[in-house]
Amino acid sequence: MGGTRVAVAGTFGPLHDGHRNLLRTALKYGDGGIVVGLTTDTFAQASRTRDVPPFGDRAAGVEAAIDEVDEWGREHEVRAIDSEADIVDADPDIDALVVSPETAPELADINETRREQGMVPLEGIVAPYVLAEDGERISSTRIARGEIDEHGALLDDASDG
Amino acid sequence: MGGTRVAVAGTFGPLHDGHRNLLRTALKYGDGGIVVGLTTDTFAQASRTRDVPPFGDRAAGVEAAIDEVDEWGREHEVRAIDSEADIVDADPDIDALVVSPETAPELADINETRREQGMVPLEGIVAPYVLAEDGERISSTRIARGEIDEHGALLDDASDG
Repeated sequence: MGGTRVAVAGTFGPLHDGHRNLLRTALKYGDGGIVVGLTTDTFAQASRTRDVPPFGDRAAGVEAAIDEVDEWGREHEVRAIDSEADIVDADPDIDALVVSPETAPELADINETRREQGMVPLEGIVAPYVLAEDGERISSTRIARGEIDEHGALLDDASDG
Repeated sequence: MGGTRVAVAGTFGPLHDGHRNLLRTALKYGDGGIVVGLTTDTFAQASRTRDVPPFGDRAAGVEAAIDEVDEWGREHEVRAIDSEADIVDADPDIDALVVSPETAPELADINETRREQGMVPLEGIVAPYVLAEDGERISSTRIARGEIDEHGALLDDASDG
């Protein structure tokens, strides 16, 4: 029962510094360990037109990123999720969920569902956006488009053959 | 620099279980201590038609509530604030701000201001709403109207002379 358990969920591919910051924020506050909900290929692809890297590659990327940013030696677990609700509705042992400023209001709905199921409501932890060199947010979509690299550096328009 | 410093701001009067939960959430995550930004009477009254209890009473209520809910023995400081921006724009030593689900999106603007001033962005901690007996949120406004008590119990329509 030691400490606060924090969940974070996403597709994490291509992995970038925004993801590293989400994971670092979860680790910072998760003194009871963290749970990373990683979308299955089917679930991740359903909401996107771009290709998503395969689950195994994304899982390996998450593990490497955690190694890199975990200053606290927290426990962690990576779980496959195939619906929006998978982690937060089903797991009574989670205390808090890492969200972005724009998804934070969804916590009210999540908590309504949890209360109906007799679970305690989740706290939210809002990780700040990580900005690219041009002051816009880093996103996997921008990386997939070839606009920026995983650290937010702007790439040349001219792409190599 | 000893852990995470968490700020929470508000009017805290009449004090209720929603406030106790905000303070408890700040204390839970604030292993480097908490700062409570308490609105001055002028600032608090400017946005309200109802009477707000005087600053000294509200400060005493916050101190008593912290004593009651602090399971961790955190350091705390109560500061007077007389603008929305007072704590979060001015204090570079704060790591995180406790917000409600509805005010969480304001963190993006706060952090834009902080970045412009060369400060690191704040994390947010979203405390779940605390519900009254009727399933609606506890609020100081409802208490001032005589609808509920500070713990969210519904009060009789008939008021004593």
